[in-house]
Amino acid sequence: MSGWVKIAGLGPGNEALVTPEVTAALAEATDVVGYIPYVARVAERPGLTLHASDNRVEIDRSQHALRMAAEGKRVVVVSSGDPGVFAMAAAVFEALENGPDTWREIPVEVLPGITAMLAAAARAGAPLGHDFCAINLSDNLKPWAVIEKRLRLVAQADFAMAFYNPRSKSRPEGFVKTLEILRQECEPERLILFARAVSRPDEAIRIATLAEATPDMADMQTVVIVGSSLTRVIDRPIGPIVYTPRSTPE
Amino acid sequence: MSGWVKIAGLGPGNEALVTPEVTAALAEATDVVGYIPYVARVAERPGLTLHASDNRVEIDRSQHALRMAAEGKRVVVVSSGDPGVFAMAAAVFEALENGPDTWREIPVEVLPGITAMLAAAARAGAPLGHDFCAINLSDNLKPWAVIEKRLRLVAQADFAMAFYNPRSKSRPEGFVKTLEILRQECEPERLILFARAVSRPDEAIRIATLAEATPDMADMQTVVIVGSSLTRVIDRPIGPIVYTPRSTPE
Repeated sequence: MSGWVKIAGLGPGNEALVTPEVTAALAEATDVVGYIPYVARVAERPGLTLHASDNRVEIDRSQHALRMAAEGKRVVVVSSGDPGVFAMAAAVFEALENGPDTWREIPVEVLPGITAMLAAAARAGAPLGHDFCAINLSDNLKPWAVIEKRLRLVAQADFAMAFYNPRSKSRPEGFVKTLEILRQECEPERLILFARAVSRPDEAIRIATLAEATPDMADMQTVVIVGSSLTRVIDRPIGPIVYTPRSTPE
Repeated sequence: MSGWVKIAGLGPGNEALVTPEVTAALAEATDVVGYIPYVARVAERPGLTLHASDNRVEIDRSQHALRMAAEGKRVVVVSSGDPGVFAMAAAVFEALENGPDTWREIPVEVLPGITAMLAAAARAGAPLGHDFCAINLSDNLKPWAVIEKRLRLVAQADFAMAFYNPRSKSRPEGFVKTLEILRQECEPERLILFARAVSRPDEAIRIATLAEATPDMADMQTVVIVGSSLTRVIDRPIGPIVYTPRSTPE
């Protein structure tokens, strides 16, 4: 069998953040599958078939990729950011585990990318410069009680936090509850960063305190970063820097 | 002032994982500063001065970079991985905050890179495919009690975990204690991944259960990933895949 699957991270949007490894995989591919806006980032060329699909069909898309690879195609599954962070890698492995045994002979590789929280952190300074966690705030695939428990415990442990999928039209209430939980666990001066469309032309980064934060500051294009209790702002004439110091006092 | 500082992530080691943005910054630089093995990855060329320094001098190195930029130099501070994850970005901002006011007019940019935990996760499958946290296990700059509290709370919240700097010659006991804490909080079948020198020629990835894990499986070149309770292995003739499913049952 000469086919393969490579699950590739395209980074947050700017082409200067796509690794040469991913560019090389796309150059070798016969087929690219992925969510419509990510496939739209791949240049058309003779010999390459683009298969764009809507979101919420991650398992169908994964099965399609594995079937084509089993037939000898060289398939790149594109994700934004890093495919291993709330993206396509876990979906492909779920499909593989539950699929025919022959799929276990297909070479499958994950090609890492710049994930949204790290691109957002870089733009703001270094808010994730010390211990931090990443939480998917969508309760489509997990009970809200699990999200709430995780939020409370990581706040109590004083991690910085990055939230993916903070708010969508179909789940407007989750981020409202998230802010309520944070207000119970953290001080009002806690810094929150709303980073929308990072590295893209419409990038918008907003710094607020927990007291100032409102639910409408986030949408599905936003990654939210909540600092630890030590996260601070450096005021500068050319714009603020938000960072978390490396040291934790006794 | 025409000088600037760019704090750039070189990724885990393989040049195919360096972003074009970082490559372009290095091409424009007059000076590169960083820890000896990272500066060694930058090609020499006329007009570029390389300033390699030992580790544990992060603040000196940051001050040096800012001083040179204030004099008009174009300075790249190189980090391995991502500069915002347990690397140079926070150190540069500490130096900037505590330095002369004029340093606040220097353009400073962070250029993200592929951090070790995401490169390691990609090699193994998708162990960080759901909520996860990143913890620096070094107690050089924080009390051990903080590390222990964080380990217990994130284990109770059932996050996957990535550990940076798990073990050094001067701190052999920290990872021993870490495994003891994990054994108190998690089941013996919990999966642990020891990923050494990821993406480099001497890469070595080892999968163990918590029951099998021993302290000598980690060193300073290793990133350790502990799965959540849902993290699983797919057995394949061509090697195992470790991944964390996207769904958490009720």
